[in-house]
Amino acid sequence: MKTTHNKFVLLAIVIASLTTAYAQDPLPSWNDGPTKKSITEFVAKVTKEGSPDFVPVAERIATLDNDGTLWCEQPLYFQLLFALDRVKALAPQHPEWKTKEPFASLLKGDVKGALAGGEHAFLEIIVVTHAGMTTAEFEKIVADWIATAKHPKFKRPYTECVYQPMVGIEFMRPWTEKAYGIPPEHVVGSSIKTKYEMRDGKPVLMRLPEMSFIDDKTGKPVGINSHIGRRPIAAFGNSDGDQQMLEWTQAGSGARLMMLVHHDDAVREFAYGAESKIGTFSDALMAEAKKNSWTVISMKDDWKTIFASENK
Amino acid sequence: MKTTHNKFVLLAIVIASLTTAYAQDPLPSWNDGPTKKSITEFVAKVTKEGSPDFVPVAERIATLDNDGTLWCEQPLYFQLLFALDRVKALAPQHPEWKTKEPFASLLKGDVKGALAGGEHAFLEIIVVTHAGMTTAEFEKIVADWIATAKHPKFKRPYTECVYQPMVGIEFMRPWTEKAYGIPPEHVVGSSIKTKYEMRDGKPVLMRLPEMSFIDDKTGKPVGINSHIGRRPIAAFGNSDGDQQMLEWTQAGSGARLMMLVHHDDAVREFAYGAESKIGTFSDALMAEAKKNSWTVISMKDDWKTIFASENK
Repeated sequence: MKTTHNKFVLLAIVIASLTTAYAQDPLPSWNDGPTKKSITEFVAKVTKEGSPDFVPVAERIATLDNDGTLWCEQPLYFQLLFALDRVKALAPQHPEWKTKEPFASLLKGDVKGALAGGEHAFLEIIVVTHAGMTTAEFEKIVADWIATAKHPKFKRPYTECVYQPMVGIEFMRPWTEKAYGIPPEHVVGSSIKTKYEMRDGKPVLMRLPEMSFIDDKTGKPVGINSHIGRRPIAAFGNSDGDQQMLEWTQAGSGARLMMLVHHDDAVREFAYGAESKIGTFSDALMAEAKKNSWTVISMKDDWKTIFASENK
Repeated sequence: MKTTHNKFVLLAIVIASLTTAYAQDPLPSWNDGPTKKSITEFVAKVTKEGSPDFVPVAERIATLDNDGTLWCEQPLYFQLLFALDRVKALAPQHPEWKTKEPFASLLKGDVKGALAGGEHAFLEIIVVTHAGMTTAEFEKIVADWIATAKHPKFKRPYTECVYQPMVGIEFMRPWTEKAYGIPPEHVVGSSIKTKYEMRDGKPVLMRLPEMSFIDDKTGKPVGINSHIGRRPIAAFGNSDGDQQMLEWTQAGSGARLMMLVHHDDAVREFAYGAESKIGTFSDALMAEAKKNSWTVISMKDDWKTIFASENK
């Protein structure tokens, strides 16, 4: 888990069926240029009946990394920010945390210090914030948090830190209600083990303090195969953890679209890459992208609008 | 795994969205009576806007056990029959199997003798027939088998051993193409571990000789929650392994439909229940069904047609 736990937190891959209907400009948040063109041309050829690249609707599977690809992942993965808020909320019931790591550092706002304990510290945080309750209780905790918590830089709900160019894409319409409106059955992600049991005569699923699956790097194709059972024809990512998903997508036959979001806009969002611990976009990944002809999306150059709030 | 491995083999749960459109008789393969009525009334109330039991389309999740509920499971789970055929096909490459159990018994057609070795024998069979190849290779092996193999009693392809009353149901239309036409992303089931790796520079998923998940009994709600993330409003099963899925379904709020197929038609299919090792419908399950007001479907009385072939 060492190499993947940074990314464990917010990772989710979503599935969307590409739709054939396109408005006059299906991508109004994208600047005109080769990147935008690579998307519209790809969709045109896979949806045109009789075309050698035609793909039947049921097979038009696109997988998209969540953190850093569909929404912001800085200054920390949002799920980690959620965990920190939960530690604060639970602290009154745990007076011992004042002197016990990693909680003592966390409660002082020292995230780096808290995570200095490595995997063990990380797991301790996950166990107290993500396990020990039923699935229904956990859903309510998350729903309450997402309704009230705000991003430290943008000062608005996390659900409004979704990238407009990504939700603006026509083929994602099936899941653009609310934040994205993705039906839960279309989300693949890291998961915790659950156990079916009776509680006061009612069946519940208890969340256990044990990881079931880490959806990162080589785990991504494994998770996609397990949940979808089909190979995607398009895949979007933004970091080293997405490389295998793009490789797996490209290795299928027929037309393919592989894209990587590059965070190079310090003014409107954040600029980071090879040196970042969160959402690392290494030089090796950039070299892979070039070698395999994957499209690198420049936030700065390719995205007319980054957040919906810019249009308000 | 001891109590579940019998059922490991063919188990799959499928998800269908109930549709609102109904023909004059949406269930032509069902005899009129209280069982048929319980289905049509349930669908009517959850699909009628303004009704207190109305359920939005996205939440109309029905989960259906596969073996014995959607298709036949006798004289053996079809996936076990597949494994036996594979052992025969692979035997020329394994001369040592002639004297090595469980293969020696299998090759003599003695399934009972082969499985006398219990879980270990069972796993040995699974390992040689279900692991050690890529996911793509395995898909091809299964596709080739299903296209040619025939049921020992009915002398027709296994895909034609699907129960007509179940595929005839309007709300399953999304997956009634071919055998059922269920898209793979709507199938939840037991699974084997896979590993992403490069082979001759191409990424593949290798099937490992290790179970990842057993989708039976308490595992069914766990699998449903993991894959779908929503609680079903309707659940169909036929054996002890389905009890927890029905309990989990019933424990949600709003209208619910829980049904169990009872195999009581020795003439048109098979009659079995409490005494059967495959698809056990114990007296305890029958008592649970009564206590919880689950509907027990009598194949003999409730199904006008069992197999599509009867109409030919």
